[in-house]
Formats: sequence, C-alpha cells, structure tokens
Amino acid sequence: MRVTGFPLFTSREIPADAEIISHQLMLRAGLIARLGAGLYTWLPLGLRVLRNVERVVREEMDRIGSLEVLMPAVQPAELWQESGRWEQYGPELLRLKDRHAREFCFGPTHEEVITDLVRREIHSYRQLPVTYYQIQTKFRDEIRPRFGVMRAREFLMKDAYSFHLDQASLEATYRAMHAAYSRIFQRLNLDFRAVRADTGAIGGSVSEEFHVLADSGEDAIAVCRHCNYAANTELAQSRPAPPRQEPQRAAQEQPTPDIRTVAEQAQMLGLTPDRIVKSIVVLADGKPAVLFLAGDDELNLTKARSALDAGEVRLAEPEEAQAATGVPRGFIGPKGLPEELTVRVDERAAAIPNFSSGSNRQDWHWIDLNWGRDAALPERADLRTVRSGEGCPSCAGSLQIKRGIEVGHVFQLGAKYSESMDARVLNEHGDQVPMIMGCYGIGVSRVVAAAIEQNHDERGIIWPTPLAPFQVAIVSINAHRSEAVHNEAERLHEALGAAGLEPLWDDREARPGVKFADMELIGIPHRLVISDRGLSAGTVEYRGRSEPTSRHLPCERVVEFLRDLHQEV
Amino acid sequence: MRVTGFPLFTSREIPADAEIISHQLMLRAGLIARLGAGLYTWLPLGLRVLRNVERVVREEMDRIGSLEVLMPAVQPAELWQESGRWEQYGPELLRLKDRHAREFCFGPTHEEVITDLVRREIHSYRQLPVTYYQIQTKFRDEIRPRFGVMRAREFLMKDAYSFHLDQASLEATYRAMHAAYSRIFQRLNLDFRAVRADTGAIGGSVSEEFHVLADSGEDAIAVCRHCNYAANTELAQSRPAPPRQEPQRAAQEQPTPDIRTVAEQAQMLGLTPDRIVKSIVVLADGKPAVLFLAGDDELNLTKARSALDAGEVRLAEPEEAQAATGVPRGFIGPKGLPEELTVRVDERAAAIPNFSSGSNRQDWHWIDLNWGRDAALPERADLRTVRSGEGCPSCAGSLQIKRGIEVGHVFQLGAKYSESMDARVLNEHGDQVPMIMGCYGIGVSRVVAAAIEQNHDERGIIWPTPLAPFQVAIVSINAHRSEAVHNEAERLHEALGAAGLEPLWDDREARPGVKFADMELIGIPHRLVISDRGLSAGTVEYRGRSEPTSRHLPCERVVEFLRDLHQEV
Repeated sequence: MRVTGFPLFTSREIPADAEIISHQLMLRAGLIARLGAGLYTWLPLGLRVLRNVERVVREEMDRIGSLEVLMPAVQPAELWQESGRWEQYGPELLRLKDRHAREFCFGPTHEEVITDLVRREIHSYRQLPVTYYQIQTKFRDEIRPRFGVMRAREFLMKDAYSFHLDQASLEATYRAMHAAYSRIFQRLNLDFRAVRADTGAIGGSVSEEFHVLADSGEDAIAVCRHCNYAANTELAQSRPAPPRQEPQRAAQEQPTPDIRTVAEQAQMLGLTPDRIVKSIVVLADGKPAVLFLAGDDELNLTKARSALDAGEVRLAEPEEAQAATGVPRGFIGPKGLPEELTVRVDERAAAIPNFSSGSNRQDWHWIDLNWGRDAALPERADLRTVRSGEGCPSCAGSLQIKRGIEVGHVFQLGAKYSESMDARVLNEHGDQVPMIMGCYGIGVSRVVAAAIEQNHDERGIIWPTPLAPFQVAIVSINAHRSEAVHNEAERLHEALGAAGLEPLWDDREARPGVKFADMELIGIPHRLVISDRGLSAGTVEYRGRSEPTSRHLPCERVVEFLRDLHQEV
Repeated sequence: MRVTGFPLFTSREIPADAEIISHQLMLRAGLIARLGAGLYTWLPLGLRVLRNVERVVREEMDRIGSLEVLMPAVQPAELWQESGRWEQYGPELLRLKDRHAREFCFGPTHEEVITDLVRREIHSYRQLPVTYYQIQTKFRDEIRPRFGVMRAREFLMKDAYSFHLDQASLEATYRAMHAAYSRIFQRLNLDFRAVRADTGAIGGSVSEEFHVLADSGEDAIAVCRHCNYAANTELAQSRPAPPRQEPQRAAQEQPTPDIRTVAEQAQMLGLTPDRIVKSIVVLADGKPAVLFLAGDDELNLTKARSALDAGEVRLAEPEEAQAATGVPRGFIGPKGLPEELTVRVDERAAAIPNFSSGSNRQDWHWIDLNWGRDAALPERADLRTVRSGEGCPSCAGSLQIKRGIEVGHVFQLGAKYSESMDARVLNEHGDQVPMIMGCYGIGVSRVVAAAIEQNHDERGIIWPTPLAPFQVAIVSINAHRSEAVHNEAERLHEALGAAGLEPLWDDREARPGVKFADMELIGIPHRLVISDRGLSAGTVEYRGRSEPTSRHLPCERVVEFLRDLHQEV
C-alpha cells in the first residue's frame, strides 16, 4: 500500500479529552475518529488492526469447533423479560421502541437471543454439546464513556455460548475455551494472565478473566513470578508465612493517650505493625461486625463479604463503630468486647503471638495479648489483600502485584438462563432437563487499546507484529527527484507484498523527518529507508521499531532478511 | 467439515409466514432463524454464504482503491438535523434516546457520518478524490417487514461514499464503482443487469440500480436481448417504429352509443387499437391535464410526472375528468377540447395518421382524424411504458421485460450533503468549495436471498459455486457399518479440504434418502456418494446439483475431477 493511496490522519497534538495513552495514540495515529460520546469510527489504519484481532479470534474459535453465527443487534424486550434481566439491568441497557411502540434493546450481550435460538432448534441430548460464537457490535450505555475504545458505548465483541447436558461437558468446553483464549493472546504477542475472578452475586460458578498486563490497567492482580497463578486481588491468596514461635509473655495494659492509628500505636509502644492486631468495624448488610487484622494488612471488602456471607459490606463511620462497640475509635480490641457482636479474625492476625491491641477503653492499649488465653479466638477467615513479595499459594514462588486490563472472560453459567427461559432437552432417560450453559467473551476492540497500553514509547505505538496494520514501512527519501530511489522503493514494495509482508510505502513528497515520525507514531514494526546515499553503497537502511540504531542491508538481501525476521515471530 | 460437528437445521415443512421462495428455502435449509419481525439470526450455514458475498465485495472494493472503515451504527441526531433528514426521514428511521435523553438513530445509511468525518479530516483538494466503504449492520424500520432477509429491518450492507473536487472526478469514480459492481455480480455468477433508474426528487443526478433477474422480482425492467441496455420500466424507452405512410382520409364522426373503452371502440369501428388515440385525464399536483396515447399503450405515471414537471401525478376520477373537460368519460378527444387545458401527446400517438378518438360529445367518436389538420399537435412527450418485443433504443436488438431484485445502487449525489453540512475543501485557487459526492450501496444480505430466487428448483437451493457454503457434499452410505466406506469418505474429506474445495461430509447415521434430500435442499453444487457397492467397483458416484443423472468416477480421480470442475468456474 502506498501512503498516497492510503491517507494517514496523524497528528502531533495530544487530544485534550483523551486521558490514557492508548486513547491519545489511537487518535493521534489516525486509527479511530470520534463521532460522539463513546462512539468511534474505525479509520482504515485502525480497522486493519481490528481485523487482525478478529482473524486470530475467529481461527481459534473455529479450531475448537465453535460455530460462527451472526445475531441481530436489536433484541425484543420479551426475551429479556423472560430471563428477568429487563428489570434487573440498569440504564446501561439501551432500550428503544420501534414504530409500532414495541420495546427492544440494542444488545449489550446475547444470552437471551442464543438461548431462544437453541431452545427452538435443539431438543435432544444427542445434539449436545454445541458452542456458538459471533463477532458482533454491542452497545452498553456507559454513564461516562471514556478512554476511547477501551470503554466505548458501541464496541466489537466476540461472544460465545456453549450448551451442555451436564456439568462435566460444560467443564470440558470451558477448558477448551480457556486454552483457545490463551492461544489467542499468545498469538497476538500480548503479555497476559488468566485470572481467577470474583463471580459476584452468582455463587458457585467458576469464572476467569483474561487480563493484558499494563501499568495503566484498572484492575490489580496478583501474579506469581514462577507459575501460572494469577488472581484478582479481590480474591488472591498467598502462602501463609510459618507461624512465629515464641513463649507467651504476661499481658500488660499501657496508657496510650490520643493514640488512634496503627502507626502511632507502633511508635509509642516500640512495636512493628506486624505485632499489632487492629480492629475494624464494618456494616454487613447494615449489621455491625468487628474484623481483626494484622496492623500492616489491608482489609479486603470482597473477602469480608464472603466471610460474613453478606450482600454488601462497608466500613463503619466512627460514630457507627462507637455505637456498635461502646468504645471510641482507635481503642477497640478483642479482649472484653461485647460477646453478642459478630467477630472474625484474619488467618494472619490469628497467628500473631504476644500482640498489641485496643483495650476497649479510651486511651489504653494492651501489649502481649495471646489468642485463647486473653481473648477467645474468633472464627478465622481470609480477610486481607495480598501484597507483593508474599508466597504464591500454588508453588514455591512469590507474588507480584500487577495491573491488568480485562480483555476476556470465561464463565460457567450453569442453568440460570435455561431455567428462566425453559430451554430443555430430553436426556438419555427421556426426561426434560434444563441445558447447562457457559459463556465466553473477548472485547475485540478493547484488545487493540490494551495492546497499545502495553506496547508504546514516547514516539508512539510499538505494535506486536501480529497486530500491526502493516509489517514494513518503506520510507523513500526524495523519490520524486531520484529515479533510483523511486525504482528501488517500488521494487521492494512489490517484492515485500509478494512475500506476504504487507508493506506501507510512504511515497509522499514530504520531509524525511515527517515520514519517520509518522511511521514511528503508527507503530510499524520494521522500517526501511531508501536514499541515494544508501543506494550508492548498494544498501538500504533497516531499523526495528524499538531498536535504538539502524543497520545497512544489501539491497538484494532485504526481502530475505525481513522474511526471516517475520518467521521467527 | 462433518455434519456431526456442524449441525444442520433443515426442515421439510414450508414455514407458514414465508411468502417467497427464498424466504421459505432460507428457513427450511437452516440458513437463518427468525428472532422477531424483520430480525434474523444468520446460522452457521447461512453465515458461510453471507461471508462469501462479503469477501467478493471487499476484494473488488479494495481493488479500486476504496478504503474500508467501520462507522458506528448509533448516530447522533445532530448530524441528521444538519442535513435536514431528521425531519424528512419518515418512521423508517429508528430513533432512540440514550440514558441522558440525547437523541440518536440506528443508522439506515451513513451519508451524514461520513460527511462529518471527511469535513474534519480533509481540507485540501490535494487529498481528493477519496472513497470510503464499510460492510456494516443497518436498520430500517419497515412498516411491514417481510420476505425474510429480502426486506428485513436489520440487514448487512456495503455502503461506499466518494468525495471529489469536481464532477469529472466524481464521474471517473462512478465508472470505476460501476465496473466493480459488475465484476462483483459476475464473480458471484448471478444473472444481473445495471439498470437506469429514476432519480426521484433529486433532479439531474445520475443513478443506476443493479438488479438480479428473477421472476419473483419486485421491479419490472426492460432489457435488451442483444446489448447492455437495461432500464427500469418507469424510465425505459424503445426505438420508435417507422411512421406509417398513408394518404390522409376525410374525417368522419360516427355514432358510438355507450362506447367507453378502447376495446369497445375498436370493435364497433372495425379498427385495431393502434389506430386509436385515447385521452387520459390526470391531476398533476392537483391541476388537470389531458394526455393522448395510442390505444394499445399504457400510461407511465413516472414519465407523466417528468413531462408535466410535477411532483405528483395521478389518474383523475371520472367525475374529476368530466369536470375538467366538460365531456363524459370515454368520449374525450383532441379535436375541440377547451384550449386552456394542459395537454401532451405521446410520441407514438403523435405518429398515428387517420386516427380515431372521442368527439368531446357523448356517444360520438371521430375516425380518420389527423394531427395538424383536425387538431393542433400538442407538446410531444414520452408518456408510455415500453413493451416486450419493441426495439432497443441503443442497438438493433429488441427489448424484453424482465423482473429484477435490486441488490445495488450507484448514485452521483453532487453537493447535497456537503452543502447542507458545510463540507468544503480549498481548491487550487485557494477558494473554499463544497466537495462533490457519490454514494454506492450493495445489500449484502439481500444478495443471498436474490441468488436463491434466481437459482432453485423444487428440491431446494442451487447455489452458484462462488456463493455455496460448501463446494462438495460427501454422502457416506452406512459408514458406521462399513469400514471401507468410512475410510474412503474420510480420505476424500481430507483430500478435498487440502485442495481448497470445502467439503461437507454428511457423516450422520441417517438413511441415505434423508442425506440426499438435505444436501439438495441446502444446495451444495457437487455431491459424492460413497457406498460399498461403488467401492467394490473402485468408484464413487458423482452428481452435479442440477444434473439429472449420476456418473461413476474412479476413486483416485475424484479430487482431480472436482478441482478441474472448480477451476472452470
């Protein structure tokens, strides 16, 4: 492709309303153009990247026997009423009425539509299992769309749905889908992790998220440096440290006037925070509970919700804490707390001998308390957020906290939709049983933005080769004045194209600096510079997008060189 | 692909609500499934066909340098207000509001969006011409969606838009697009015509429709048997017959009691209808006019609108006709008609010597009238609809009236959108001038239905090879009991796949008759039958989808035979 026939819409200016780097670079490189809030047109350059993602996703879906369909974007309200989601789904569901005032929505997802299709077409266990997928436009009416295509309202998604007679069959497909997702992100050369995810309100179901690692990611995830363990920090656990072995000392109460924080308490009593048991009052579905954690640990509300079996858990305000315990904030502790209060102790706090904590009276703290002897050991639970450097729960390695961008999700749905929508099959015994379902999504357009968050520098995008809109940039210097340069550029353009290397020849009459900057901004992995000076020595200058220096290749070796590089990938 | 891994959803029953054959066959063959009125899911088999159309369209768009983009389906109302179409467009425009009550529509077309994009990105004539296209989901809220995907509400369309400095550049791109459309429909093996179309309210613009010919088509088009001439019958002209040469006879008035129709008049006066000039009263924008046509011709209201330069033309009711002329219906004629009446004569009627017509008094008709001598010759115009067998206006051939399904449209838009939306560029002289635009559509999903209307028999679809979801059906007879049959089917399945021939192996444990019927219904062009009987003679049975008989091919020659057949196409 020649730039004169493939106009670039690059810009040096950083768009004012683009907060994150991928959004800035996608606008500056002319991959997308904004139509309205959360609505973007994919320009020719960006669409080539999007199609690269689509192609890899499609190939891997086909490879595991998933069957491609294309469902309508506009979905009848009746189906969502059947599943109960017409009421449950908030204002993110874009509802609309047709000319006859019948209600529809612009689908944010297709569980209802596919379940309706399958209950009409599939009636016997012999037709199971089956998996359908589509790559299709979705709409989610975000209250504050931002970050470009990362959190757009209209976006491209691969959604897949599997149907099974039983859980074992679901698990087999789930594993195949998991492996396919891993291959997809590997083939796209992205640094990613499959992360155990909180399944939220739907208890018991298994779910994993696929995250592209990037410093700007919205989610914190704990990943092992050695094995595949990765979990959202909402869920992640670490290997318990061996318990401290020491003789119990006699408990003593100490005056601690105006001491309210762990740091103040540690300093005044000459302790490290890991010898302190702090007491946190929360309201679990409105009911107070006291949680004991090590002084240097952070309470994890998702874990607290699970430990207290509550729908919602929040920190109590100081007055609420005092009302529940009768003790001013900063001085609550396990010894002497009213017995009717719900209490839990984190595993790590439960293992601290000779600990310090509040005395349940103002301006006093205990030191050298011991569980069992001085205060009953409450029910133990995992309440803390893991920290970087702690031991991996799956291997002997250690954890690191990384940030990730969710680009995929695999989910064992169970019978949620098939029961509410009465999607049943006859089993081997002639009984009507609800089908068991899985669902699996990839944010196709979001993958493009995530790849940029992970791969860029101050000059622009650095595409992983499989995503690049073009593989090789050919920059001809003064080709309009030098026939030799023009001819060699044309020859290489043709030869590289024939070799399947997708060249983009910047054949504009522009200054070399402008061309270099553009090719770097749009992130083409390989760059060839063709100039009279080089040609007089029979060479062409090559530089990889992230390499600091150039090298000179003999003209006749260029195609072979690039083909070899390409095949390594 | 094996049928056990690619479930077919075929049916013998003709769906009750499917009126046309393509709709019936698409449902019966399991290409699509209905979700709601005018909403269809493309099932895996149908999607393979749709993708074949998409691929050919994309290749031909790319070949002429058109650049692919992907614009949002959801479009802000503001842009439609700028162009004026928010008010003009009727209830077919699906309007919606987001959570902030801002107005949008689900785009039925993208002139506004692309014009907005281009006016932001393109500022100089040096960046022109440029053509963008997309293959994207549209919505048109038809009042009565029907005929399946032929007239669905949500559908897949290729829409392209070109931008130019001047008319000459538009015309060059228009010609290239026209040629690309012709290649597309040729490559899809469809019998089609490019048809001159009425441009409706937008005067002066050039527009052609591409029609797939099929008896069930909604549009009547006149096509030449010899040259490329084709026009919607609303517009079509024919070569005038040589004028009849005969001496003028004396006019005579004849009593014709109760004679009101051309047929009655012809019989009573012993004339053929082509010797009669009939008088038709119409109301053009409410004003009466009398049109004279040959007795055997049919008035064409589209042509009348153009001849009378009117927005709307309709036939007058008998009372309206009498009020306008003072003459009862059946007896109106050119001789003695009030002079203030607007009159036009069709070219053919103007060439009849010694004609008969009403006397402008009840129960009397003239014979042997002559224009000029007995009545002033009114302004001449083309008012008649051409008939099969008439001479082609472009060559010596003759016209045929065919029926067509519109699948494409190319249109020289001019400056309609660039003026209303202020999309200007600097020209060579530094002046801001509105860009000149063209737009070009192909109904991608409609092409699939049109192909079936043109290619089917009583047993099902007969796919043109380039559209077929699979090229070759392999039917194995009792493969679960015969290892030899199973092995040969497996070998051929693999070998044909390797040869790029897309085989579908019906490996179900079903009766041969069921498999044959299914493979014929879904229209696979080539069928191989593998049975113990055939294998004992070292052969496989072959039959083309529309061939009446089978032949026996030596097993080892099958792949070569099919590859040769395929290459012929």
